[in-house]
Amino acid sequence: MLSFSEGQELINRELQKLPVAHEPRDLYDPIKYIIKIGGKRLRPVLVLMSCNLFTEDYLIALKQALGIELFHNFTLLHDDIMDESEIRRNHPTVHQKWNKNIAILSGDAMSIMSHRFIADCDEGVMRPVIEMFSKTALEVCEGQQFDMNYENRKQISTQDYLKMIELKTAVLIAASMGIGALTGKASASLVKQSYEFGKNIGMAFQIRDDYLDVYGEPGVFGKMIGQDILSNKKTYLLTRSIELARGIIRKELQKWQTATDYDTDEKINAIRNIYSRLEIEKLTASAMNEYYQEAIRHLDKMKIKEDRKSELRKIADTILARHQ
Amino acid sequence: MLSFSEGQELINRELQKLPVAHEPRDLYDPIKYIIKIGGKRLRPVLVLMSCNLFTEDYLIALKQALGIELFHNFTLLHDDIMDESEIRRNHPTVHQKWNKNIAILSGDAMSIMSHRFIADCDEGVMRPVIEMFSKTALEVCEGQQFDMNYENRKQISTQDYLKMIELKTAVLIAASMGIGALTGKASASLVKQSYEFGKNIGMAFQIRDDYLDVYGEPGVFGKMIGQDILSNKKTYLLTRSIELARGIIRKELQKWQTATDYDTDEKINAIRNIYSRLEIEKLTASAMNEYYQEAIRHLDKMKIKEDRKSELRKIADTILARHQ
Repeated sequence: MLSFSEGQELINRELQKLPVAHEPRDLYDPIKYIIKIGGKRLRPVLVLMSCNLFTEDYLIALKQALGIELFHNFTLLHDDIMDESEIRRNHPTVHQKWNKNIAILSGDAMSIMSHRFIADCDEGVMRPVIEMFSKTALEVCEGQQFDMNYENRKQISTQDYLKMIELKTAVLIAASMGIGALTGKASASLVKQSYEFGKNIGMAFQIRDDYLDVYGEPGVFGKMIGQDILSNKKTYLLTRSIELARGIIRKELQKWQTATDYDTDEKINAIRNIYSRLEIEKLTASAMNEYYQEAIRHLDKMKIKEDRKSELRKIADTILARHQ
Repeated sequence: MLSFSEGQELINRELQKLPVAHEPRDLYDPIKYIIKIGGKRLRPVLVLMSCNLFTEDYLIALKQALGIELFHNFTLLHDDIMDESEIRRNHPTVHQKWNKNIAILSGDAMSIMSHRFIADCDEGVMRPVIEMFSKTALEVCEGQQFDMNYENRKQISTQDYLKMIELKTAVLIAASMGIGALTGKASASLVKQSYEFGKNIGMAFQIRDDYLDVYGEPGVFGKMIGQDILSNKKTYLLTRSIELARGIIRKELQKWQTATDYDTDEKINAIRNIYSRLEIEKLTASAMNEYYQEAIRHLDKMKIKEDRKSELRKIADTILARHQ
């Protein structure tokens, strides 16, 4: 069975020899750049591993794996413009290194390329693969729009937050599993179970990301600790706190959400303190664990040999325990 | 045979009932808006008419026609951001009416929707239809990038200009014809001839647009006369003039290209005068006519009944003679 790290190596090797045109350079150089600066390659590896659940010949899903990774990077490229982010994976973002127009257009080209790779599969599965991909791609746009809308709202419910991360993050991880299963000629119910496994892993993955912003070990977690707190980013921890806080804690939370002039360490410590009084760490860990358990239930239900599932179990465990 | 105006009516009717989701509104309202404010619907009608060359049942190409029109409108939406255009078809552009981020994201969603419509066709032609579309879509991005690059260059050759409009404008009109022919199950050589007819019509169409900016009748031509002249936009007329101008005419042309403080009527008249001394009107009409003739040659070569070609001949004549 293909392991995650073998999958990563394979994908990185293939991405390096991706046939990207040369001219016009301002269109294609940013595409090569964003691919080169890396990433965990979680989604494309899941495409291959999901396919590998059903066939030894997981390379039949290679084009779809690359298509999903291209699409994911396209969304990062455009999200960075919209969020005005200056740094991505320790490198300047495309609109910083080139300019906004070039970032818009090279993102557009990447999106088109991703469709091209996705559609390059066996005739027998072409239609369902394309349908799952384009439905998912549109959902990712919806998720980004909800995310932008929520930025300007003082409070959103945890339910709205969960719906947003499902669209923005989880469905593409779900579709990676689903498309892998489709290329592996899995039955409709196995495709559905693969998809649901991915969706729940994706939810756990995003909530874990929120969690690590507050409880991650500095230097181990890839980002600086407390950034979400400082930017009042809507996270699972914050939406839950807003729902649970009463009385004096509620007032303190509101004070910090609207404060404009403060010491950053003081704000981080104050919010951590509120989280601690509301037992947010435990609640968040428990939410993550529920999604993890739900993912495992779908894997358990799959009517395929147990030994084929081992590598995906490892991934689920790693995601739940990830520190970076 | 489907006439152009019948095709337009059909497309406009179908666009009105296009299944566009409602939520989030900031994502989908701009899509409904840009579709509603109109356009000539040249590309989708050509898809249907091209299909109709080979079968009575041209409605089999309806989804592809809508997909092409969605893609075209997506490119307008993003081009308007990049060009900072405030008005499109007498209405505020999407980034003006909403904002840039919404325009980026709703454009992304439109691009994804266009792929979805294009792929929704008969299994037998799915692969070549998707391949022609995604290749073309990427070329349109290349054309837009060249266009942006050329804006900052003092002079470009007519050859570079023609390559740019081929990518930015002509190939999508070509692919409209090609995809129509593919859905109509035309042979490879008939698909090629349809494509080439479209490409040459597209070139004539764009050069005619450049021509009308200078020689169009005010009030008949949809845009204000002389706008390209005032903005030093690279057009067939300007690139030819730069190549041909010598001595005092060359100096005068250069003076107007770099002038910052001038009376607009004076600049328009001065450039028209230069064009007149260089016989640019005749040269441009002749270039248009060559592309028109080349288009007709491809139509003539098609081994199908003559009476099936009549409506496309009319379109070619209309485009060459169009005043708006």
